[in-house]
Amino acid sequence: MAMELKSLSAQELEREKARLTEEYEAYCAKNLKLDMSRGKPGKDQLDLSMDLLNVLNETSDCTDENGMDCRNYGVPAGIPECRRLFAELFEVKPENIIVGGNSSLNLMFDYISQCMTHGVDAQHEPWSHQGKVKFLCPVPGYDRHFAVLEYFGIEMINVPMDDNGPDMDLVEKLIADPLVKGIYCVPKYSNPGGITYSDEVVRRLAAMQPAAEDFRIMWDNAYCVHEISDTPDELLNLYAECVKAGCPDRPVMFASTSKITFPGAGVSAIAASENNVQAILHRMSFQTIGHDKLNELRHVRYFKNLDGIKAHMQKHAALIRPKFAAVNQILTEELSGLGIADWKLPNGGYFISFNVMPGCAKRVVALCKQAGVTLTGAGASFPYGKDPDDTNIRIAPTLPPVHELETATKLLALCTKLAAVEKLLEQA
Amino acid sequence: MAMELKSLSAQELEREKARLTEEYEAYCAKNLKLDMSRGKPGKDQLDLSMDLLNVLNETSDCTDENGMDCRNYGVPAGIPECRRLFAELFEVKPENIIVGGNSSLNLMFDYISQCMTHGVDAQHEPWSHQGKVKFLCPVPGYDRHFAVLEYFGIEMINVPMDDNGPDMDLVEKLIADPLVKGIYCVPKYSNPGGITYSDEVVRRLAAMQPAAEDFRIMWDNAYCVHEISDTPDELLNLYAECVKAGCPDRPVMFASTSKITFPGAGVSAIAASENNVQAILHRMSFQTIGHDKLNELRHVRYFKNLDGIKAHMQKHAALIRPKFAAVNQILTEELSGLGIADWKLPNGGYFISFNVMPGCAKRVVALCKQAGVTLTGAGASFPYGKDPDDTNIRIAPTLPPVHELETATKLLALCTKLAAVEKLLEQA
Repeated sequence: MAMELKSLSAQELEREKARLTEEYEAYCAKNLKLDMSRGKPGKDQLDLSMDLLNVLNETSDCTDENGMDCRNYGVPAGIPECRRLFAELFEVKPENIIVGGNSSLNLMFDYISQCMTHGVDAQHEPWSHQGKVKFLCPVPGYDRHFAVLEYFGIEMINVPMDDNGPDMDLVEKLIADPLVKGIYCVPKYSNPGGITYSDEVVRRLAAMQPAAEDFRIMWDNAYCVHEISDTPDELLNLYAECVKAGCPDRPVMFASTSKITFPGAGVSAIAASENNVQAILHRMSFQTIGHDKLNELRHVRYFKNLDGIKAHMQKHAALIRPKFAAVNQILTEELSGLGIADWKLPNGGYFISFNVMPGCAKRVVALCKQAGVTLTGAGASFPYGKDPDDTNIRIAPTLPPVHELETATKLLALCTKLAAVEKLLEQA
Repeated sequence: MAMELKSLSAQELEREKARLTEEYEAYCAKNLKLDMSRGKPGKDQLDLSMDLLNVLNETSDCTDENGMDCRNYGVPAGIPECRRLFAELFEVKPENIIVGGNSSLNLMFDYISQCMTHGVDAQHEPWSHQGKVKFLCPVPGYDRHFAVLEYFGIEMINVPMDDNGPDMDLVEKLIADPLVKGIYCVPKYSNPGGITYSDEVVRRLAAMQPAAEDFRIMWDNAYCVHEISDTPDELLNLYAECVKAGCPDRPVMFASTSKITFPGAGVSAIAASENNVQAILHRMSFQTIGHDKLNELRHVRYFKNLDGIKAHMQKHAALIRPKFAAVNQILTEELSGLGIADWKLPNGGYFISFNVMPGCAKRVVALCKQAGVTLTGAGASFPYGKDPDDTNIRIAPTLPPVHELETATKLLALCTKLAAVEKLLEQA
């Protein structure tokens, strides 16, 4: 059955629909309850970091390398050894780092909030005083980024992604509007596309001339060391490029150990220019007396340095590689040649971006749901939840065990075919 | 020398000044470097909680009582057993609790930010759209509260405290202004006065009729179990009173384990009505996928229940009681009867509020600083850092060891006398 479905006659399609429906009903009878909706690490991945919990105990010296007692108040920018660890990760200097709590999303939300109410720094007006400000959103993208922008009433403009990153011709056109205040990027193993921005895209992001002086690139490097393949993608250092281009304040970069150690109890960080760091620390000086320094200490003593993190990430890769491979294999077996779906096995990250026939994504997700498999809602990877072509589905393969994943993927392939046949019959 | 200084003649004052100056110069020669500026627990207090670090290790079951893996994403309101622990502490139901990260200040900042940009809930306009909004600030009060309000441009109105809490006649008058959106309280062992609000004050706060429908009482119960004496103050449950009075949404209450376990790595919480909890969780759903659940688990397994916390707090009391007593004894020996200072030994909390002769607080703090003892800046306990009478100094006795504290307090008493003599000579 490697024939393109659209070449089938109406009669053949009806026959195919009956066959697929029967198969689908058999799935429904199984009372499945599987979840491929969110990019959560599996239990086996969480088990990798259990020794982190042994790092500190009642006999531990809890002082940082400056002699500060990490149990007590203070040190809002983070303890020096933890700033140094993240500096290695971001390829910047320790003074460009602020260590946060357990959530980089929280750091990003708070940063957008700060820009709205107080501006990017003391030299610039709050965004909320400047009119209806806008953000560029490479699509498909991460639903939680879009949700933060929507919460603050920031208008979102779709910018299509290709295999090199966002369409830079369009970006360079759109930034002529001084109300366009930023662009929200996942530059390595993008969520959900798995795309890593090319060197040229990174250089153009650094070299472009936004009309807004207070333009910011929200650079969510969530998957910076999250490899799957043995041939990792390489991402150019945006900050270094911006320094060269004379716009060091443009990027504000984020990462966390959520998918390195524990999503519930990791450490997050910001990397940015001295000016941005100062503006953020100024706001934080009102907001908190400091983040959890014992958890900073735990992480830095556990990993020691970037090599320690990378060695640890290889263990994650070993666990999730078979899951990505299983999804890819089943999709290939079930769908290749049918002309109704495309996807790409990424070199890293947490997702497979799966495109079905235009107008079918919602139907596929609904069919899966009805049969007991929860996927991320169709449209979620677009601002306002609106996928203009109703084509994109985000697959998150990490959480379920392989056998569940296989069942869920087979069902997904089946629903993809069923929805396509339905659509083709409508159009026939 | 138990004679009131103001009864001395100019000549006697000059003689006294010379004597005190000589004594002061002897202190300066000692090159002291002591800090009584912030309410930080001492090292001995931090050592009390070291077993907390043993609660979780590589063999631990990290699931909460609902079977959620605390290492993974999710559970933004906090794990059920931790909500229950804080519910006991706040005397509310678990569904009235949201567990936060390590900082209740952060929860308060974020709440004020939410009220400014989005309103107290979906039914009310953002405060920032309603004009120049105002807050009532019982004084003396906590500088970080005032700083949050100032950061968001909220106008602060002083309300004097007496031994029962804020002047409620004045409060009831001021809330007739619909732009007055709240009052910021530390209701038990107030910072810095050590005052616990009387039952009548709590009842009047619940019964009063603010013109603003979206009026909120910021109830920072930072010292709810932080006793020093064996006869603790009792605080009436504001939430229960507000429910009775038909205004359950009025109070938003905050606490943390910062001064129970570790300031750097504790757990914070909000207690509020279902409507407020829903509005706060709605905002948090954009801000984070959840706070540090492993630290919640650590705390709840360590303490088990409120009795566990109270037993632990007795150990703190045993360590800080001698410090408060030492300060009180030295101040009494050096200053009683002179008519130039008053203070009160509180039954709990972290501070002694020390009032010097009007117009002398800044001078006293500067003299201490010059001799190597750092106190909280004079005026810090008032909005905008402006103590109208320049009289209040906050003493934070917990951090320094007793012998340092004794030295610092002797110097403080000396500087209080010196500044008073200077002031009396000016007026002579």
